[in-house]
Amino acid sequence: MQNNTITSPKGFLAAGISCGIKKSKKPDLGLIVCPNGAKAAAVFTTNKIVSAAVTVSKQNVKTATIYAVVANSGNANACTGDQGLKNAQKMCELTAEEIEAQNKQVLIASTGIIGEQLPIKKIVTGIKTAAQKLSATQESGFDFANSIMTTDTKVKQATRKIQISGKTVTLAATAKGAGMIGPNMATALCFITTDIAISKPLLARSLKSAIGQSLNKLTVDGHQSTNDTAIILSSGAAGNRPVVTACPRFKKFNKALGDICDDLAKQMALDAEGATRMFKVTVKNAATKSQAQIAARAVANYPLVKCAVNGADPNWGRIICAIGSSGVKLNEEKLSCKIGSITVFRNSKPAIFDAKKASAIIAQKQHEIVIGLAAGKHSDFCYGCDLSKNYVKINADYHT
Amino acid sequence: MQNNTITSPKGFLAAGISCGIKKSKKPDLGLIVCPNGAKAAAVFTTNKIVSAAVTVSKQNVKTATIYAVVANSGNANACTGDQGLKNAQKMCELTAEEIEAQNKQVLIASTGIIGEQLPIKKIVTGIKTAAQKLSATQESGFDFANSIMTTDTKVKQATRKIQISGKTVTLAATAKGAGMIGPNMATALCFITTDIAISKPLLARSLKSAIGQSLNKLTVDGHQSTNDTAIILSSGAAGNRPVVTACPRFKKFNKALGDICDDLAKQMALDAEGATRMFKVTVKNAATKSQAQIAARAVANYPLVKCAVNGADPNWGRIICAIGSSGVKLNEEKLSCKIGSITVFRNSKPAIFDAKKASAIIAQKQHEIVIGLAAGKHSDFCYGCDLSKNYVKINADYHT
Repeated sequence: MQNNTITSPKGFLAAGISCGIKKSKKPDLGLIVCPNGAKAAAVFTTNKIVSAAVTVSKQNVKTATIYAVVANSGNANACTGDQGLKNAQKMCELTAEEIEAQNKQVLIASTGIIGEQLPIKKIVTGIKTAAQKLSATQESGFDFANSIMTTDTKVKQATRKIQISGKTVTLAATAKGAGMIGPNMATALCFITTDIAISKPLLARSLKSAIGQSLNKLTVDGHQSTNDTAIILSSGAAGNRPVVTACPRFKKFNKALGDICDDLAKQMALDAEGATRMFKVTVKNAATKSQAQIAARAVANYPLVKCAVNGADPNWGRIICAIGSSGVKLNEEKLSCKIGSITVFRNSKPAIFDAKKASAIIAQKQHEIVIGLAAGKHSDFCYGCDLSKNYVKINADYHT
Repeated sequence: MQNNTITSPKGFLAAGISCGIKKSKKPDLGLIVCPNGAKAAAVFTTNKIVSAAVTVSKQNVKTATIYAVVANSGNANACTGDQGLKNAQKMCELTAEEIEAQNKQVLIASTGIIGEQLPIKKIVTGIKTAAQKLSATQESGFDFANSIMTTDTKVKQATRKIQISGKTVTLAATAKGAGMIGPNMATALCFITTDIAISKPLLARSLKSAIGQSLNKLTVDGHQSTNDTAIILSSGAAGNRPVVTACPRFKKFNKALGDICDDLAKQMALDAEGATRMFKVTVKNAATKSQAQIAARAVANYPLVKCAVNGADPNWGRIICAIGSSGVKLNEEKLSCKIGSITVFRNSKPAIFDAKKASAIIAQKQHEIVIGLAAGKHSDFCYGCDLSKNYVKINADYHT
């Protein structure tokens, strides 16, 4: 069976265990180790309140060679003050000790409840246990993917193989999503491993571009968390001629990275809290690209649109209302809207359409809403998901 | 029994009937008539897509003397093109005929489903029927209030009496709310009658200020509808010395108008679709008033906060996350948050508090969340409501 986890690229070990952060005893601590060192790049939340893990990783990612990533779920270590920062540093220190690296050569990510101190004693034992379990097997990769989940119901993974200068280069990624997902940096947590040999600046550039076109296009509830982090590690073990300029080989890698991030973004939308389906909102003919994005997000974040998608109702009135309310430039006489292939609104007037067919399109796992503003030449898109009773149940019944 | 409806100020007649716009046969057509004429002012949605009624009323409100307002529920007459505009004009014309006024002396408001043409034949008959039922009784005032409701479960009314130059001046208002309510102009529809003698510019100024501090502070789902309209009519029948400058008498009227609008805003929040309770978000010590408002709305619109309020959960982490995500200037070391009288976050650190007490505060019909940004001297507030499973049920199961 083919390994489709983050251990599939050459040069990576992983582990995922339960150390008792979660009362449920579900896995809550994961390690990725690159024994020969990796180049690393990361993208973080732009929330002004960030977790201790984000503070530490922002600093450590500047280090030339990274040897490990330690991640925990069940506790965000955010709004935890000096003690929280010490605990995050302690986690890096313990991981570094286990693999004989320096503290600054370890990256860290946390997700879970805000405002509680980490149970650091449990984590001390946990890191040791996880270090002993490190392996390059598919099982270990899956264990890591499992250990970062919070209210996710499914493990999210994606892999690609490409040929670069005669060598097979593998990219693999895992992410956790669910709630508090809004652009920019619609991630929660995302970890990508690859064995390509590439320079650190190009790795960073490729990550930024891939996240910008995928996870940052995803909006579940319009908000970024305090902890959103995407990390990429490249071991260079594929043995390709190192990519050091923006050459065709770089573009090939770029595309593959974009593809797996897009794949993860869709998996995250479909597994958002309470979500039963996802949709893509494309806004065309906007005055600027930024206005296209504002309009698309206004539609994808509008609770009434999200509820209509949940009910498979082709309620274009709510879509048009969201567009009008977003404040973007539009031609009031020439607005149009399509649900899948069906035109529901044309020249700012309702079109005659088969409501059952339109409802069947929305009832699919994924569909696209296309809006034309007739105000310019720019377009952009975003991904959204429906709003279900279950979203409310998950987030109202969950108690701090 | 005291008349607490829009017919309580002197000089107004009202009626509300069912003419068959709604399949449910519930009341859907209302009239307010001021036989001796009234000064009028109005505030409208800033949504770029507006209903035909808004287009017509924006023009007609400029007329020196207004004799009537005609309103319908069950159909928004929005996105209905030229035919929609003709129908809105037709409604004014029919109303004008009944009361022997000019078309431009009638204001109009619509609410309901977007994108369907009005059943104009039913409305023709309806306006005649309503005109015959016009009266100054409390019953007629209540009938009008009832005729503008859509998914509202309760009639919303407020009245005040004040003394102006030795005369009793009465103000009365009714509103409908429920969904698609977001600042600015968080109204859906609001109708205010008063018998004060006042100049038209001062009436307009007072309305703008009152709506700005009340309905525009209310956010249910962050979006304005295509139809939001607030209209005030003053008959001058109280016989007070006319208010023509911003004198103390004007301030007294201003305050009373502000009070009834605030009262309505709270009624609307409590009767928002699926809402079980409301809350006020006050942001203090912001760099600017506008930033205080942005931060307050970020909290009130955040689905995870709304769900936590629904579950009576003092989940301050979600509040702080929303503040951080809003992008406003803040002192990362000095943030604070109170739920009612309980400090839950101080100097950017969790405070020790009695979670049961905090939960009991949230479980009330109304509570206040106060956030301190420690970034300046400005403050502002907004009103929000919880997000319940019932909101989703109402909006997912409702089919176009």
